[in-house]
Amino acid sequence: MIRVGINGYGTIGKRVAEAISLQDDMKVMGVTKTRPDFEAELAIKKGFRLFSAIPGNEEKFRDRGIEIEGNIENLIDDVDVIIDCSPGGYGAENRRVYERHGVKAIFQGGEKADVAQTSFISLCNYEKAIGKDYVRVVSCNTTGMGRIANIIDSEWGIERMRVVVIRRAVDPKDDKKGPINAIAPNPVKLPSHHGEDLKTVMPHLNVITSAVKVPTTLMHVHMVNFNVGEMPERESLIERLKKEPRIALFNSANGFKSTASIIEYAREIRQRNDLWENCIWEDSIAVEGDEIYLFQAIHQEAIVVPENVDAIRAVMGFEDKEKSISKTNRSLGLTQ
Amino acid sequence: MIRVGINGYGTIGKRVAEAISLQDDMKVMGVTKTRPDFEAELAIKKGFRLFSAIPGNEEKFRDRGIEIEGNIENLIDDVDVIIDCSPGGYGAENRRVYERHGVKAIFQGGEKADVAQTSFISLCNYEKAIGKDYVRVVSCNTTGMGRIANIIDSEWGIERMRVVVIRRAVDPKDDKKGPINAIAPNPVKLPSHHGEDLKTVMPHLNVITSAVKVPTTLMHVHMVNFNVGEMPERESLIERLKKEPRIALFNSANGFKSTASIIEYAREIRQRNDLWENCIWEDSIAVEGDEIYLFQAIHQEAIVVPENVDAIRAVMGFEDKEKSISKTNRSLGLTQ
Repeated sequence: MIRVGINGYGTIGKRVAEAISLQDDMKVMGVTKTRPDFEAELAIKKGFRLFSAIPGNEEKFRDRGIEIEGNIENLIDDVDVIIDCSPGGYGAENRRVYERHGVKAIFQGGEKADVAQTSFISLCNYEKAIGKDYVRVVSCNTTGMGRIANIIDSEWGIERMRVVVIRRAVDPKDDKKGPINAIAPNPVKLPSHHGEDLKTVMPHLNVITSAVKVPTTLMHVHMVNFNVGEMPERESLIERLKKEPRIALFNSANGFKSTASIIEYAREIRQRNDLWENCIWEDSIAVEGDEIYLFQAIHQEAIVVPENVDAIRAVMGFEDKEKSISKTNRSLGLTQ
Repeated sequence: MIRVGINGYGTIGKRVAEAISLQDDMKVMGVTKTRPDFEAELAIKKGFRLFSAIPGNEEKFRDRGIEIEGNIENLIDDVDVIIDCSPGGYGAENRRVYERHGVKAIFQGGEKADVAQTSFISLCNYEKAIGKDYVRVVSCNTTGMGRIANIIDSEWGIERMRVVVIRRAVDPKDDKKGPINAIAPNPVKLPSHHGEDLKTVMPHLNVITSAVKVPTTLMHVHMVNFNVGEMPERESLIERLKKEPRIALFNSANGFKSTASIIEYAREIRQRNDLWENCIWEDSIAVEGDEIYLFQAIHQEAIVVPENVDAIRAVMGFEDKEKSISKTNRSLGLTQ
């Protein structure tokens, strides 16, 4: 049984904790929180042992009547792998603590690539993470781009990939910032970093990306465009996508006209409407001349969850990529 | 003096009426309204003669104390050219009335291309409209794409153009519809109609477009991407754009981070923040490998105004394209 700790029970941490609880080969030993807020109480209500992310702050939790079992250092000594879900940019500092305790760690996409020995997307490069001590699961946008790029590339050979990322401005829980009525190229200077980030996983890829931020909270949307070596028939492309459990196809004729309707569907079938799949509009898939075009929606809060679970197995030396992926998929209910 | 009537004093109509008033070779003989609302009152306050768009409805205006001089048929008999600014889709029906009265007409981009003898963007195909009876000024998005395409194509030869249109959901005055928190591929099925529409003006263009609708009212944003025959230096591309008065360059270092800041600037320098130019983020312009990338913002309410003024001269047989364009530019205060 792999013993796992979650450092940071926030947007990603709480989802990863729950996904790990569904695996039969790993166990959540505890989670950390910086502040004694409602999410700290939720962690305990969900049955997780709670630790202070900052050593010495345990009293602040006790003062609010929240049961705390120690701090991050105590948790680390009890685990094989730490999932670092702290806010972006803290990873490098945290890594020094993990190193001191000799514990493996999985970082998130908010960290620079050099925080880890390899960046990671299960379908693309699981094998690179096997036995490593430090692995970085890339961001939601990069994960979404990498999955579809991997399929297209391995089947038909990508010559060039272009993506326009239409980003949700903030997450649903964020009540501090906007924009509320604007479209912001983000960054203005082209290309955006997303393509470079994807190359940390797929170094051979000829990819260029741009991004705008728009006033919505639910999901990102990618306009994806490929030149490929060999043109597929539209139908065989769709058949191939249907075979991949981490891709879900949606059809506008069924009422899926926007991210709002996709999320409305997810609210009925999933805890907190988590969508771990690339949500591709099937009717957007176009094979035009010598190019492929499609729209996909990416649930920024959830898409990297299966990647985190697979990364745990990889760093612990579990060598069978397909077995890990299908184990994770089955536990979450991800089917073709 | 060219005598012009405006059929429909709405979003486009009121702007075109004002722009015509600034010309020394044409005169607004009157404007029409369907309903006696605040915009009808504004038309009179601004000094325009008002006519009922629907014959027989004059009393409805008089009942509200709004001075009305007759109906559309009376206006038509008094003009050389009608600018049809009625809601999209009414143009074909209206054209029969214009034909009956033997008056030339200029339609807007909401109509099908076959409503007119030619579609129109001043920089691209002024000459096609000379002496014609029916001309269609294309939509805001098509106008914005056509202007930049024309410059790039004539200087460096476009081999392929790809545009992702990130559309404002509704205009600022529209209080009836959303979306308020979603990204909607619009249409889902690719490609979008914008590329086909652009080909009604530039038939040789290899262009493909897609569009999403997002919750904002201010401007559209286009992510534009070109393959060209001969690659320009970035600096010479910028120099060329600076020479075109219907292109305005904005720099994010000056605080232009989004459509909101561009519109905030326009509110200081223009009546109702009208931006008749393609607003291109200078720092977004990228010459990457064998491709050109840039972001441009398009003020959907205003960009087609100069095109309407030029179209009037063209249909009246004024043959000097450059002279018409620079006359229109000077009257509006559009400089390089």
